[in-house]
Amino acid sequence: MRGRYPSPPRSDPPPSPFRLRPPPGRDLPSLRVVVMADSTLDLTLDGPALTARLVDFPSVSGEEKALADAIEEALRALPHLTVDRHGNNVVARTNLGRAERVVLAGHIDTVPIADNVPSRLDADGILWGCGTSDMKSGVAVQLRIAATVPAPNRDLTFVFYDNEEVAAHLNGLGHIAEAHPDWLAGDFAVLLEPSDGEVEGGCQGTLRVHLRTTGERAHSARGWMGSNAVHAAAPILARLAAYEPRRPVIDGLEYREGLNAVGIEGGVATNVIPDACTVVVNYRYAPDRTEDEAVAHVREVFADCGIDEMIVDDHSGAAMPGLSHSAAQAFMTAVGGAARPKFGWTDVSRFGALGVPAVNYGPGDPMYAHKRDEHVAVERITHCEDRLRSWLTG
Amino acid sequence: MRGRYPSPPRSDPPPSPFRLRPPPGRDLPSLRVVVMADSTLDLTLDGPALTARLVDFPSVSGEEKALADAIEEALRALPHLTVDRHGNNVVARTNLGRAERVVLAGHIDTVPIADNVPSRLDADGILWGCGTSDMKSGVAVQLRIAATVPAPNRDLTFVFYDNEEVAAHLNGLGHIAEAHPDWLAGDFAVLLEPSDGEVEGGCQGTLRVHLRTTGERAHSARGWMGSNAVHAAAPILARLAAYEPRRPVIDGLEYREGLNAVGIEGGVATNVIPDACTVVVNYRYAPDRTEDEAVAHVREVFADCGIDEMIVDDHSGAAMPGLSHSAAQAFMTAVGGAARPKFGWTDVSRFGALGVPAVNYGPGDPMYAHKRDEHVAVERITHCEDRLRSWLTG
Repeated sequence: MRGRYPSPPRSDPPPSPFRLRPPPGRDLPSLRVVVMADSTLDLTLDGPALTARLVDFPSVSGEEKALADAIEEALRALPHLTVDRHGNNVVARTNLGRAERVVLAGHIDTVPIADNVPSRLDADGILWGCGTSDMKSGVAVQLRIAATVPAPNRDLTFVFYDNEEVAAHLNGLGHIAEAHPDWLAGDFAVLLEPSDGEVEGGCQGTLRVHLRTTGERAHSARGWMGSNAVHAAAPILARLAAYEPRRPVIDGLEYREGLNAVGIEGGVATNVIPDACTVVVNYRYAPDRTEDEAVAHVREVFADCGIDEMIVDDHSGAAMPGLSHSAAQAFMTAVGGAARPKFGWTDVSRFGALGVPAVNYGPGDPMYAHKRDEHVAVERITHCEDRLRSWLTG
Repeated sequence: MRGRYPSPPRSDPPPSPFRLRPPPGRDLPSLRVVVMADSTLDLTLDGPALTARLVDFPSVSGEEKALADAIEEALRALPHLTVDRHGNNVVARTNLGRAERVVLAGHIDTVPIADNVPSRLDADGILWGCGTSDMKSGVAVQLRIAATVPAPNRDLTFVFYDNEEVAAHLNGLGHIAEAHPDWLAGDFAVLLEPSDGEVEGGCQGTLRVHLRTTGERAHSARGWMGSNAVHAAAPILARLAAYEPRRPVIDGLEYREGLNAVGIEGGVATNVIPDACTVVVNYRYAPDRTEDEAVAHVREVFADCGIDEMIVDDHSGAAMPGLSHSAAQAFMTAVGGAARPKFGWTDVSRFGALGVPAVNYGPGDPMYAHKRDEHVAVERITHCEDRLRSWLTG
């Protein structure tokens, strides 16, 4: 889950006399050496214990190699899986010739540790620590299914990828999609991102454009000698203020679009008529629109607003929930409860772009992602694993 | 003349084998010692020669003391004048008991020297150098009148002040007005700022306000959870774009008002609904409005625009041209030609605030003020001096 919550500042844990720690002044590589002393993963641990093990195996974005190595090694030990690797991304598949193939995917990186590693299990069954929610509990469920369901009713693809919490161009799922799109093929995909045990269908697209008006500078004491670019932006703001966003229903889910100025800037000096003004607009759109349609819509909304230039600054397409597909329907039945639409953009869109309907469904609670007090209820981990096993073996 | 033109970057003159200069590495105080070797002003020089002498006597803002000393010394040598001093500001007055008193005022500082000192007179009668236009030619005319008109038909007050080219709170005329307003008393004032030999009547006021709208932050994927402060600014821009500025005629001069956004700013991050937006508005208003009336007008214009806060950021009142006064009418007759309105704000407003009508009338050309190629036609200096002498002796 990327960018939804502010990251806490990176901080070092306080020195403790009770645990072996690198001496002050030693940096992270030294800590990694300590971890390397136990660099294997035991997939016979139950879901909560495996989650704790993963949390205690630091893998901040950019430093996932050791964990990717451990995951690869553990999966290669399972004879029913074929394993591929691309960078620090690991993909494992069954090849049973089933009628359907489903993908279970998750990122193995976390935001920077904030004095919340190692993990701690309290008396109420709450597991605390960096990544407990986002999303080492989800990765633990993936690994548990991989290890304990050797003959699923659908062929399975497990995807473990890096760099989800950082810039989009580093995202491991994107790198796999570009280099080996066939590794991601399937009829349906589940990302085990924190969703508090609910199913979030598809995701909305997000388009950011810069709408620019221009004018002519002049001294503000002789404003009639120039042309005011900020005044020229008046129709843009009026159009935004009056805009009625759509709320289309797709696969039974009601999406909610939005067209918002997220920034505006203009001005040269306090005695100069501004010759340029830029309104930054973010269009969040439902998955019944393609990327081209989204751009065309924004262009149409502002068609007669006197804009001199419209620049597409950033664009990530929407993803259909695909809940009408048979694999998805069986999944919904097994999971129980209703799906809800996903308004924010997530990596399910990368599957959407490959024609694979996808949902978010994971044990973590997004409210606590990226927080110092990140935690997960161990009961949620077990429940999620049970539901997926039920779907894949029923 | 302040802020009308961009100041060129300060630069040192190239080393010259033909002139005595401080050795490299010596700083300005050393240069001042060189100047002190000839620290007197000869008021028997004609206007152009005295201008050249003043240009060759550097007095960049903040470094006017030596020139103020020289002016004070030269004026104290004139028995028909009483001389006062406040800081580096010098005021000299006749006390002949005339029915009217007029003020001739000018600033003695310049913008930083830009490789354009010492002065140079070319074969076409153009005098080049820092301050030739803004406004050592005007100061030369003041000094010439002071020295050569011992029995004027109106009592005269000569004001020489510092720090006009820098921040308003340093302005010497403002300091005199605050400490010794009686020194500036009079029926009419002429500032010898560069006006290309035309009379600029009064000046417009300038009011700058910040109009602030507020909203509530939310993730832009769930914009309906928040309230967009940039959208809330739409009525402000619409009002500005539709505004029809006044063009009132005062004392026969047509002023032109203006109400302009000179800046706009809003935005938190590209995925956040902005909770604040500020439009910076500059109102330039004609001298038939007081400062209070100007604020009330702006408040009224935006009354129903949903503004949460209006902050007056900067305000300098307008000044009436006062051309209907008898001293002014005699001045206009002597000078010849028509007056024009002054749209920008100038120091005449400081006289206006003291109830003294004022105009700009000086030999310099404002087009070349603050420029590396600053210059003045010597014929203009002589003409200006002649016209003023005619007015004050006719």
